[in-house]
Amino acid sequence: MPDPHDTRTLAKDERRFLRTTFGDEDALFDAESTCVFGADAYRNFAPPLAVVRPTSLEQVQELMAWAQKVRMPIYVRARGTNVVGSCVPRPAGIVVSTLKLNRIIEVSTQDFVAVVEPGVVTGELQKRVEQDRLFYPPDPASMKISTIGGNVSTCAGGMRALKYGVTREYVLGLTAVLPGGEIIRPGGRTHKNVVGLDLVRTIVGSEGSLAFITDITLKLLPKPESTASLLVGYPTLEDALAAAKQVFDAGILPTALEFMTRETLDAVAKVQAVPWPEDTEAALLFRLDGSRDALAADLKGLTGVLESTRPASLDTGLGPDEEEPLWEIRRMINPASFQVAPDKISDDITLPRGKLREALVKIRAIGREAGLTILTFGHLGDGNIHVNIMHNASDVEEHRRAVSAKEQVLALTLSLGGSLSGEHGVGLAKAAFVHKQLGPVERRVMAGVKHAFDPHNIMNPGKGW
Amino acid sequence: MPDPHDTRTLAKDERRFLRTTFGDEDALFDAESTCVFGADAYRNFAPPLAVVRPTSLEQVQELMAWAQKVRMPIYVRARGTNVVGSCVPRPAGIVVSTLKLNRIIEVSTQDFVAVVEPGVVTGELQKRVEQDRLFYPPDPASMKISTIGGNVSTCAGGMRALKYGVTREYVLGLTAVLPGGEIIRPGGRTHKNVVGLDLVRTIVGSEGSLAFITDITLKLLPKPESTASLLVGYPTLEDALAAAKQVFDAGILPTALEFMTRETLDAVAKVQAVPWPEDTEAALLFRLDGSRDALAADLKGLTGVLESTRPASLDTGLGPDEEEPLWEIRRMINPASFQVAPDKISDDITLPRGKLREALVKIRAIGREAGLTILTFGHLGDGNIHVNIMHNASDVEEHRRAVSAKEQVLALTLSLGGSLSGEHGVGLAKAAFVHKQLGPVERRVMAGVKHAFDPHNIMNPGKGW
Repeated sequence: MPDPHDTRTLAKDERRFLRTTFGDEDALFDAESTCVFGADAYRNFAPPLAVVRPTSLEQVQELMAWAQKVRMPIYVRARGTNVVGSCVPRPAGIVVSTLKLNRIIEVSTQDFVAVVEPGVVTGELQKRVEQDRLFYPPDPASMKISTIGGNVSTCAGGMRALKYGVTREYVLGLTAVLPGGEIIRPGGRTHKNVVGLDLVRTIVGSEGSLAFITDITLKLLPKPESTASLLVGYPTLEDALAAAKQVFDAGILPTALEFMTRETLDAVAKVQAVPWPEDTEAALLFRLDGSRDALAADLKGLTGVLESTRPASLDTGLGPDEEEPLWEIRRMINPASFQVAPDKISDDITLPRGKLREALVKIRAIGREAGLTILTFGHLGDGNIHVNIMHNASDVEEHRRAVSAKEQVLALTLSLGGSLSGEHGVGLAKAAFVHKQLGPVERRVMAGVKHAFDPHNIMNPGKGW
Repeated sequence: MPDPHDTRTLAKDERRFLRTTFGDEDALFDAESTCVFGADAYRNFAPPLAVVRPTSLEQVQELMAWAQKVRMPIYVRARGTNVVGSCVPRPAGIVVSTLKLNRIIEVSTQDFVAVVEPGVVTGELQKRVEQDRLFYPPDPASMKISTIGGNVSTCAGGMRALKYGVTREYVLGLTAVLPGGEIIRPGGRTHKNVVGLDLVRTIVGSEGSLAFITDITLKLLPKPESTASLLVGYPTLEDALAAAKQVFDAGILPTALEFMTRETLDAVAKVQAVPWPEDTEAALLFRLDGSRDALAADLKGLTGVLESTRPASLDTGLGPDEEEPLWEIRRMINPASFQVAPDKISDDITLPRGKLREALVKIRAIGREAGLTILTFGHLGDGNIHVNIMHNASDVEEHRRAVSAKEQVLALTLSLGGSLSGEHGVGLAKAAFVHKQLGPVERRVMAGVKHAFDPHNIMNPGKGW
């Protein structure tokens, strides 16, 4: 909800500044044009005072100099796929769209780097570098619609994080504009660099709260020759988790290791044909990659380990065409979830890997208690569980039960030594819980770090910690 | 040299505080006991005012509370393997040895984490976790004698960084004591976590300038089943670099890819039998790892690529016993270097990978111009070159030429878009050059970040940026 006490409006000279700097086409003021910039996938809304779309570093500098002077909140966003309200412009301020900063400036096959602007869609960058047999591993589920800038701001993870790590590991350097308009260029183009404090990784994952990123230098790897995937069903959750442990114990680090539990399997089964038998309680989805012959050997090894775990079903796909139907099942979870109920509360908690069973069993019990279906699935290898509390939000009492279930899930997470978010960030959705994970001293130090970048708190205020 | 203006001494009550807090055995004051704590492998010395050896978190807290109150510089060190003077206690202050904080607190096969104190030797941790078929990848050349605490403080790299990344990627959480004695516990035990600003990775690589780390939670991987190595000689530097490029282009990401150029090969040949023919100009050393059968396939693939590059020699080692002699050559570089001249100035510059040839050719020219032999070798995959400027430091004029050559190498590095350090850090050795890499705005922000942790600049002052 917009804060009724937040009555800031744009003065005439402020409008004039924005119109002069960005031109009529890229400075939007009327509610009809700006309202879509007031929400993200969290579906929480605040009206922007204005929306601007810079096309150059100089425009960003002018904006940031002005914003600091007049203490104007700045909300940088791209495609708004964020699910925790990180892009919602509250308190009132200017939304800055990076969608016109969308050039792939360079892909270097010599240096194994790409230099891109923040508005580049991650999946398009991946396609582009693959033309040169290069590889940008981070693959958040949203990668076909989310941008590198957003991925960097949230330190996005993805399926391949188990083997290849998260976005943080691939950001070599940045250009960023500070409140006030000064430019910093931490890091660079080298794959290693330990000179000075690590401002690059301070900015990565800061949810737009420190500086305005205008370009990003990313590390690239050689593109693995081949991939294969396995989807394996189990009669019990315990069997599935024990199988995953056996895979690790065999010295295998898969590229990806996803899981789905009963409620999720049932939801998917409602919308498409599925390969597991009806009484399957949990499924694992593996991906491997490597050179063709090594992959064949690894696939044989993994299949051998999995066959020894007596799965209810085992389906293999070798190469993109055969793998596609297996991953399509994973991608169907979100649309399928709405077969269960019209609304969801999503979380992406992370547990120490050994606490997964306890967490999943207790989350199921929380759902039962609340009379709600809770879907659990996610990145088993990282201990990162996506929790979807399905409910009907128009039923006030049911919505209250869903909110209470969320609070119980988050409390459970922290009691097991987990983290409130592995990928999505804090945004608005978890802002009220963050003090339960971060102590007052940590938060004071974070405030000090923020102050070093943004002394007047104009960058995405009211979000995160 | 000690600063003649630095006349700080310990007052009686300061001595009493240290003696009371640490006991006679672990509070050292006499020059005979403390002098070895006044230098590290950079061989630059300043006398400590005292040396203390905490054994508990509580002692560290008391020390840090006191130090902040009396504005006493604190120099945390372990085994002093640092080669840039990061551990030298100048301006005068207290050296704190972490060697009694050396417990491996826990190795969890369920969570794939280890919790360790900073004084644990990295190689010993690796052996310990391998007993459980787990794997801690970072392997700085010093790993048999350097500690996890030092590795974290410098964000140590190592041979396996090409495939597995650097120390930063493995630090999940920390306990650290701030100046003033307060404790922070950023991060945790989960493999992913995006809640709050990333204080963990702000501390990693900060060269002891922010906080006193008292324990570290590390991410572990499944131990790869097998390894193999290949040592390949080439008649020209260009051939060697072209071969490396062909390997990447074939989609192969080796675990390690080291290189040595002519001067280094000649130095090693003076101290032991070598497998390359006499006119070899450059050599590459590869390591692969994986499951037994996949490794065999990858080894075949890599060998095929390398044979097509017409090497002067190609030696393969399958498994630790056969690989050992190949890596022994790599490890012999340091002792062999002193066959060339009694003293060295070391640097570990990092280049964009595609600039390696230009850098190596120009460094050779700098050496020729100076009448000095410069050894170059290092981590080709990361673009990280170790530069050893060999000379006789007792010849004042020769030493002057070596210093001038170092300055030229660093200037060359920056002109090619490189970084002054990929692994070693800045310390004292590069403090005078750091402003050439980092701009004034970046350094101001870094100072602000430092202030958020250490407002009175008592943590390792005078080092780094």
